[in-house]
Amino acid sequence: MSDLPKHVHFHEEGPREGFQIERGGFSLADRAALVDALSETGLEEIQVTSFVSPKAVPQMADAEALFAAIRRKPGVRYDAVWLNERGYDRARACPGVDIGGRIALYASDAFALRNNNCTAAVMRERVNAWLDRYEADGVPIERALVMAAFGCNFEGEIPPERAVGELVWAYRVCRDRGLALPRLYLADTMGWANPQAIRRAVGLLRDALPEAEIGLHLHDTRGLGAANVLAALEMGISHFDSAVAGLGGCPFAGHGDSRGAGNICTEDMVFLCHEMGIGTGIDLEALVEAARLAERIIGRPLAGRLMHAGTLAAYRGRRAAA
Amino acid sequence: MSDLPKHVHFHEEGPREGFQIERGGFSLADRAALVDALSETGLEEIQVTSFVSPKAVPQMADAEALFAAIRRKPGVRYDAVWLNERGYDRARACPGVDIGGRIALYASDAFALRNNNCTAAVMRERVNAWLDRYEADGVPIERALVMAAFGCNFEGEIPPERAVGELVWAYRVCRDRGLALPRLYLADTMGWANPQAIRRAVGLLRDALPEAEIGLHLHDTRGLGAANVLAALEMGISHFDSAVAGLGGCPFAGHGDSRGAGNICTEDMVFLCHEMGIGTGIDLEALVEAARLAERIIGRPLAGRLMHAGTLAAYRGRRAAA
Repeated sequence: MSDLPKHVHFHEEGPREGFQIERGGFSLADRAALVDALSETGLEEIQVTSFVSPKAVPQMADAEALFAAIRRKPGVRYDAVWLNERGYDRARACPGVDIGGRIALYASDAFALRNNNCTAAVMRERVNAWLDRYEADGVPIERALVMAAFGCNFEGEIPPERAVGELVWAYRVCRDRGLALPRLYLADTMGWANPQAIRRAVGLLRDALPEAEIGLHLHDTRGLGAANVLAALEMGISHFDSAVAGLGGCPFAGHGDSRGAGNICTEDMVFLCHEMGIGTGIDLEALVEAARLAERIIGRPLAGRLMHAGTLAAYRGRRAAA
Repeated sequence: MSDLPKHVHFHEEGPREGFQIERGGFSLADRAALVDALSETGLEEIQVTSFVSPKAVPQMADAEALFAAIRRKPGVRYDAVWLNERGYDRARACPGVDIGGRIALYASDAFALRNNNCTAAVMRERVNAWLDRYEADGVPIERALVMAAFGCNFEGEIPPERAVGELVWAYRVCRDRGLALPRLYLADTMGWANPQAIRRAVGLLRDALPEAEIGLHLHDTRGLGAANVLAALEMGISHFDSAVAGLGGCPFAGHGDSRGAGNICTEDMVFLCHEMGIGTGIDLEALVEAARLAERIIGRPLAGRLMHAGTLAAYRGRRAAA
């Protein structure tokens, strides 16, 4: 009936995606404390910050200082985002950044034009240039990800064949270059996915590339995050991007405001996994505490649910204790 | 692979469960306006208020006045809650209340003691007394519902056999009396359910009573609401209790505070159904507007997601229009 994975891996993006969307003004010490708290939860991968233009994203201007401030825990991977060569050079020069090449593709021309000022096809040409650079620098490829894979606010419905086609293209390009490409991600950038769409896209990608490992980058924009994760788990998907406390968006945003597009909440989805008997290697209580720290730092209620209700651990002993 | 229903029915409990949990001070006109807005969405059943002690629940003291203020729409059922004979008498005497008998049972003695000052077994005796009364008054039975069916904050884990056993008892009692019992509800009163627990309990109840119709009363306390609804839909469940805007709880509650235990959000779950091709008879845009009205009345951000992000309808035409 289903093909649940035994272990699920979460790529924590809260420190980057969360604070990028906020207006700024959060102290370096607070942001480092959040990364440090996450480091103690058993998470294996934490996306710390972006090396992007300080003019465009002033709240990420101190990326180097943030990396200098965190306590790196052995066994944890600390990655970062860059969008151009300047950012890549900064990330490579910054001590403590675990560098991995990311292939970013678009399933929507309208979104590609808006976000990157190019078509999806031109984006593929740029990927080839990035791969030249990564090869030359000996940087391993970490993932390929296709944005707006399930639908696009600027283009409307996206046929799953289009998103899958971009990832198949990336897979073949890497194969032809002899580069390992560990994982292919479908990204629901604007919160269009539903369980059936997840199954269709994952099924198509599996049919096209049975040997490839698939991950999902999901947002909980319209309240279907947990249902989409369940559908994916039942297809054996074991890699998810997520954000502690549901950082990256908030239910307080104006209607249609992009701040509404929160990532799936790491601790709520870890709870889902654990309740279904799926391991994550994560200490859920410690993760809930990290989520509460994130909420204290941001200074307003965040979207995560478990952090407000508490886990079931304290209640489970009641019968025995009674 | 799954057994999705063609049509799903939502029993809207926001006006009752939502305002009951708030501190009060909301005008009668505002509360009537919300019920009236919900009446125009295609919802077939709206739980308006509770006929309970004005001392215990002062914010529900004006139940009669609220029923007098709403505009009843033909074809919509307007029900209410009562917990004792005094409340039942008030509800029966109140014009506009659609009276149906509810059988309430407990899967947890500890919760029954706390909530009703009796054991689950004594609660069954009380049900028999209620059935005598309903029979004498010619009041049809609407449902049987077992609380804390998936776990209890006061008792811990609840074996599914216990919750199912209570419903089987109710079913047989009604059958022996020759009373129709349209539906049996498993209630996740304290937010313990997960998709596997839903499948186990529904499966057990189906095995015990293949001919009974099953409904679910779910809360989104720990972020699994949408996943639990998906698991239920895939078992063919087509009746859910829910609350517009996710009323009935809020993410702003203190940890462990019962205000964290929000009902599943009606419009988010209607959106889930529609995206999966399941009909509901509900005008989603009108329901989102009702949710926004609820938020304006309550005066702080509510937990629903779709109401903040907007539906996909406006975006779907983009490609055609472009």
